[in-house]
Amino acid sequence: MRVLGIDCGAERTGYGVIASDGLAHSLVASGVIRTRPADPFAQRLLQIARGLREVIIRYEPTAGAVEEVFHAANVQSALKLAHVRGIALLALAEAGIAVGEYSALVIKQTVVGYGRAEKSQVQLMVKSLLQLDYDVQSPDAADAIAVAICHATHARAAARLGAAR
Amino acid sequence: MRVLGIDCGAERTGYGVIASDGLAHSLVASGVIRTRPADPFAQRLLQIARGLREVIIRYEPTAGAVEEVFHAANVQSALKLAHVRGIALLALAEAGIAVGEYSALVIKQTVVGYGRAEKSQVQLMVKSLLQLDYDVQSPDAADAIAVAICHATHARAAARLGAAR
Repeated sequence: MRVLGIDCGAERTGYGVIASDGLAHSLVASGVIRTRPADPFAQRLLQIARGLREVIIRYEPTAGAVEEVFHAANVQSALKLAHVRGIALLALAEAGIAVGEYSALVIKQTVVGYGRAEKSQVQLMVKSLLQLDYDVQSPDAADAIAVAICHATHARAAARLGAAR
Repeated sequence: MRVLGIDCGAERTGYGVIASDGLAHSLVASGVIRTRPADPFAQRLLQIARGLREVIIRYEPTAGAVEEVFHAANVQSALKLAHVRGIALLALAEAGIAVGEYSALVIKQTVVGYGRAEKSQVQLMVKSLLQLDYDVQSPDAADAIAVAICHATHARAAARLGAAR
């Protein structure tokens, strides 16, 4: 499967596309969609929508994954994030791509083996799991790759469970 | 001006299009976009996006207006609403339509003259301001018309202020 992971953010939305059989993963592409902070919010949502559509057309993912929205820290930023998340879910639905949703805890547990892992640990594990000989520079891109790896891993587990029944 | 007001909701998104010079308003169209509760959330966002695009193409609004997101009552439903609101802002931005955002307080103050007005009072005032000889059945559609009236009123005030300077 080819999974597009998206790490939503009003300023920077990270994306990562991996090819995976659920055990071994390889990186197809990753990057960050940046928006212009001076632009009206609706305009920034449009920039994110266009960026994601471009990624979907170029890399043809067969599955999508995003993090569940988290609101403990600051309700205002969680609400802003939820707008962007709506755009990401829409971009996937428009392309007919089903989406998996995972909490930050489950993503870190799956990728790092520890639910409270630091961002830098996620970056390191992503590099190691994908056998990259360079660092994933952007933490947003690394987080996006992590949610893609999480989805591929869980999808394999679910398929095996289904086959065993 | 021709204003599209949108009242966002995951289950029912109301819309109202009015023609207005800022003082007198007439109803062009109103209605409700319903989503199927059994569908995945991303699918429901797609249904809302398609519904809004259809309304925009059919009624060609020149301005848009939505309520600011409100989170006092329940954070989970506010977050859900924010996803839908992202879709509404995107639909307007895609069509090149600038959008005004107003708090519930300001909308009710502008339309009813009282910031804590009940839904039924909003429905009555909308009917009266638009000189309708029938009730606006759906409260979602009435709320959408109310935010459109609010925007038209404020846009006129802003234009007059600008001219007086």
